[in-house]
Amino acid sequence: MPETLTLYTAKVCPYAHRVELALAEAKAQFQTFEVDLQNKPVWYAPQVNPASKVPAIAYGGPEVPPEQPSPDSTKIAESLVLLEFVADIFPESNILPKDPVARAKVRFFIDAVGNKFNPAYFGYVVTGKGTQADLIKGFKDIQALLPETGFAVGEWSIADAAIAPFIARLFVALENDFGLYAVGEGPKTLELIKTSPELKRIQTYIDDITARKSFTDTFVPSIIKNSLIKRFANATRASSAL
Amino acid sequence: MPETLTLYTAKVCPYAHRVELALAEAKAQFQTFEVDLQNKPVWYAPQVNPASKVPAIAYGGPEVPPEQPSPDSTKIAESLVLLEFVADIFPESNILPKDPVARAKVRFFIDAVGNKFNPAYFGYVVTGKGTQADLIKGFKDIQALLPETGFAVGEWSIADAAIAPFIARLFVALENDFGLYAVGEGPKTLELIKTSPELKRIQTYIDDITARKSFTDTFVPSIIKNSLIKRFANATRASSAL
Ligand SMILES: N[C@@H](CCC(=O)N[C@@H](CS)C(=O)NCC(=O)O)C(=O)O
Ligand SMILES: N[C@@H](CCC(=O)N[C@@H](CS)C(=O)NCC(=O)O)C(=O)O
Repeated sequence: MPETLTLYTAKVCPYAHRVELALAEAKAQFQTFEVDLQNKPVWYAPQVNPASKVPAIAYGGPEVPPEQPSPDSTKIAESLVLLEFVADIFPESNILPKDPVARAKVRFFIDAVGNKFNPAYFGYVVTGKGTQADLIKGFKDIQALLPETGFAVGEWSIADAAIAPFIARLFVALENDFGLYAVGEGPKTLELIKTSPELKRIQTYIDDITARKSFTDTFVPSIIKNSLIKRFANATRASSAL
Repeated sequence: MPETLTLYTAKVCPYAHRVELALAEAKAQFQTFEVDLQNKPVWYAPQVNPASKVPAIAYGGPEVPPEQPSPDSTKIAESLVLLEFVADIFPESNILPKDPVARAKVRFFIDAVGNKFNPAYFGYVVTGKGTQADLIKGFKDIQALLPETGFAVGEWSIADAAIAPFIARLFVALENDFGLYAVGEGPKTLELIKTSPELKRIQTYIDDITARKSFTDTFVPSIIKNSLIKRFANATRASSAL
């Protein structure tokens, strides 16, 4: 019998979404608990994740309700650690390939998501310190790693799980003009990303990752939109140059 | 017959040192090429690592001199990607345990090195923006993850490879008072780290990782010292409060 597994998650969170994708692809049997990040249960930090963040997994031990985590389960945090963990406990799912060189490509791609793509995204949308050009550069850096067709390393893998939640949230933000770029720039930037001939390969890739059943089953755009409204409602922003 | 393997490294570099440790522990057969970071060979970026950094590995393909990398080998970069890669190609070495929970602990520890310990180290020594208290906190964060005895997860693993090069370089810097903290503070900070009763567990851990044969075989303190002299010779620093 497989070990018990409970995912502590939040629909709004891209890091947690990574793990939801991996578990969906692995066809895992598990319980989920949606953590309200605005009002976290008092037991969450002491009993599940001392860093008080989602995602976290409780693995093993007796079957218990998520609200009463067993001291006998192992608690694991950090989305990238959890992607590897899901791959390790479901080896037959092939969400991480078996070949060492292919595995290295998966991990190199994930590194680029964290160190190139996400900083470009956050700089443009969240802190306002990055430019549209920086964001486009972030897409090109990822595009340069893609094979001619298919997912990040061919078959779907945890590399795709690492980036999809961020691209999806970026698109919701741009579409609705939420972010610290100039007012009105969001939809234009989105149009550029979706149509620029220089981004042809990654456009197909984005279609592929967001059409995947694991993705459509786990992504709720309205929740992202509502959270962005709260976040950027009172933001001070430059007015559009136009 | 095992695949050919060439490591492009630099003795001064802590990231490269990580991979030297993993290869030593795996008892790998490989060629090394020492890259002069002040004067990199023209072929290095185009033929080995477009990011023009060490470490990198050329894996597979024909036996060639390191200066003439074969287009038929796979080139892999990024120290943490390479630690996993070495573990993957030498599974019998057990430098990454087999058990999924133990593997997750290794990766969580490595995450803490990159996101907690190293920022504390760089903040104190390299940018001067962090305090001695921040550095001590970095040691405590790592200490909190250690089991009662032994290495990061018991037996030696790539988690230990991830941190040892940084602690060793920090100690050389402090001992010689190199860094952007106040003049004269380095040796006192080192003394504090080595003797504070609050850091007892990590003191033993540091003794253990630095006594390991893979470590003593790969670490050349004089090279670190010389590079630090060049780096901090002309730094503007606060004078000591004393
Ligand atoms: N490095 C972590 C980041 C996780 C994270 O930042 N999660 C956020 C939500 S997206 C969180 O739980 N924040 C705590 C809070 O909002 O109080 C990971 O990769 O899992
Ligand atoms: N993220 C990289 C960092 C590697 C790195 O920064 N290496 C430095 C030396 S420690 C380097 O090669 N820098 C290029 C240069 O000095 O020109 C890794 O983990 O491998």
